[in-house]
Amino acid sequence: MFNKENVIELFKNIKDYWSPKIIAEVNNEYVKIAKFKGELIWHDHKNSDEMFYVIKGSFDLHLEKEIINLNQGDFYVVKKGIKHRPVSKEESWVMMIEKKETKHTGDVVSDITKTVDEQLK
Amino acid sequence: MFNKENVIELFKNIKDYWSPKIIAEVNNEYVKIAKFKGELIWHDHKNSDEMFYVIKGSFDLHLEKEIINLNQGDFYVVKKGIKHRPVSKEESWVMMIEKKETKHTGDVVSDITKTVDEQLK
Repeated sequence: MFNKENVIELFKNIKDYWSPKIIAEVNNEYVKIAKFKGELIWHDHKNSDEMFYVIKGSFDLHLEKEIINLNQGDFYVVKKGIKHRPVSKEESWVMMIEKKETKHTGDVVSDITKTVDEQLK
Repeated sequence: MFNKENVIELFKNIKDYWSPKIIAEVNNEYVKIAKFKGELIWHDHKNSDEMFYVIKGSFDLHLEKEIINLNQGDFYVVKKGIKHRPVSKEESWVMMIEKKETKHTGDVVSDITKTVDEQLK
């Protein structure tokens, strides 16, 4: 990994929902991609902002006081410590940027929580 | 800035080539977009990796020992200290991720060098 790659081709290899794949390392951040469908759990990241950028489709980013609908080409940065929950009625393809040490479901561990090693596969 | 925004709409507002605009702040990184056309100067960033991700069109990323052709959807990370020079025969639209304090033409100051304040406008 970490040579030239194509985001769309990498998405085609992803079969599972809510299973982020690390596609690049930039300084102290990982760039990840994931297919969303259904609802993720509520969580926050105490020490990391997280950028969501929609490659294909659309999803709703639930925050405590609002719901932000993100469509193809839209992006939004959830600042550190802010509780959020992505909900995607249909399949959406999303790129994320967050600190390397960030757990993708925050401190909440659930059946779908993936370790960093699993995200590198 | 730093609310929900659309990358394509933001590109439509860019008139100048090689004039990066900061569109998001994620931890210690800026996400920037720029229109490329023609040749940038050779430069490196001593303290920052830089990710290039092609939103539209294609360009050649010249490195000292190879030329990497990047097309729509392709991305590549130039590791810190590696000399590089983007060359874009036709107009291309590119997203970049790099440390906040990074100068977009490295230590080389030329007529096209933009300060961070100029990139925030």
